[in-house]
Amino acid sequence: MRISELSRRGGVAITTIKFYLREGLLPPGELTAATQAQYDESHLSRLRLIRALHGPGGMSIAGIREVLDLIDEPPDSRIQLLGQAQDALGSSADETVDLSPAQQLVERVGWMVAPDSSPLHDLAQAMVAIDEAGIKLIEGGVRRYADWAAELVAAEVETVPEDSPSSAVRQALLGTILIEPLLLALRRLALQDAAWRRYGAGNAPS
Amino acid sequence: MRISELSRRGGVAITTIKFYLREGLLPPGELTAATQAQYDESHLSRLRLIRALHGPGGMSIAGIREVLDLIDEPPDSRIQLLGQAQDALGSSADETVDLSPAQQLVERVGWMVAPDSSPLHDLAQAMVAIDEAGIKLIEGGVRRYADWAAELVAAEVETVPEDSPSSAVRQALLGTILIEPLLLALRRLALQDAAWRRYGAGNAPS
Repeated sequence: MRISELSRRGGVAITTIKFYLREGLLPPGELTAATQAQYDESHLSRLRLIRALHGPGGMSIAGIREVLDLIDEPPDSRIQLLGQAQDALGSSADETVDLSPAQQLVERVGWMVAPDSSPLHDLAQAMVAIDEAGIKLIEGGVRRYADWAAELVAAEVETVPEDSPSSAVRQALLGTILIEPLLLALRRLALQDAAWRRYGAGNAPS
Repeated sequence: MRISELSRRGGVAITTIKFYLREGLLPPGELTAATQAQYDESHLSRLRLIRALHGPGGMSIAGIREVLDLIDEPPDSRIQLLGQAQDALGSSADETVDLSPAQQLVERVGWMVAPDSSPLHDLAQAMVAIDEAGIKLIEGGVRRYADWAAELVAAEVETVPEDSPSSAVRQALLGTILIEPLLLALRRLALQDAAWRRYGAGNAPS
């Protein structure tokens, strides 16, 4: 197909496709004339993937490149893969944050995690922020949130296929990245619903 | 206290405090000399709050200003408050995204939400991205994630105090903003743990 059809079927503007080509995220098409290239279904599927990561996943171009490299050439170890994928996602945490409360929690829950992984920094920073803001947590505290996360993830790992390494990689990576905005959006909507039920006094939302 | 003590106790650099003062996020101290001002405990508590929002919450200065305004002058209606707080958090969703799958889900779950609220756009966008990337969801699909979010929120609304409107506002707003990074960090750590258990073959994480 020509770039115009790729644009239409992928739902991505031609100028954006050209940007992805220049950045090397999308492999070049097959040249059929000096100024014309042909693209196939593999381009379309890669374009949809980039679009998904670039949009709600909110990843940087560098982060997307790291994720695509991992999908194209997955490391031998799937644990190494997950670690690299989480590093590609980055962390907003301050490097100097005190990790010990987060480490103690992880120990109490009995999780096996790398002692300096980026989500451990994120957890430590989030715990400090909640503490400093003086928010009252739910009964059971952070531990109860951890149990919820574990329950969710137990269902999610069931979806990772065992037969093909490349589809396992795809599922594990994209599951991490693309489910996050879904979870946050659902929690915010559930909060709206809870507020209507508590304070709405029978008025319909508008 | 002087700005140096405010800096030390708040864990924020003096240059950053001066930036917050210039932006009007932090009210000015009481001038005691031409170049010297005194700050009190209310400045310290506001500074810690700004720090919490600016850090892991990852909010823009404009977003922080909106949240502080809501805390200082909460609207009469708490539902209006929640809607305004969610709008301050913003949405990364494309305005043209098709809302109907998200609306249908919300209807099936029985949630009362504003028909054009920003998390509904986020949900719609996340559903499109997951679909386009071809990720296999957990058994029960998005509906199961929604039930999980509802369960979480049911526990969270219990923590919102009924006695003082201003503390209710604080709790509802900050609970929305600051719990999100906590949840995502915990899910990523639980994923690490699950990967170790499934593929680690007894090796300790390093």
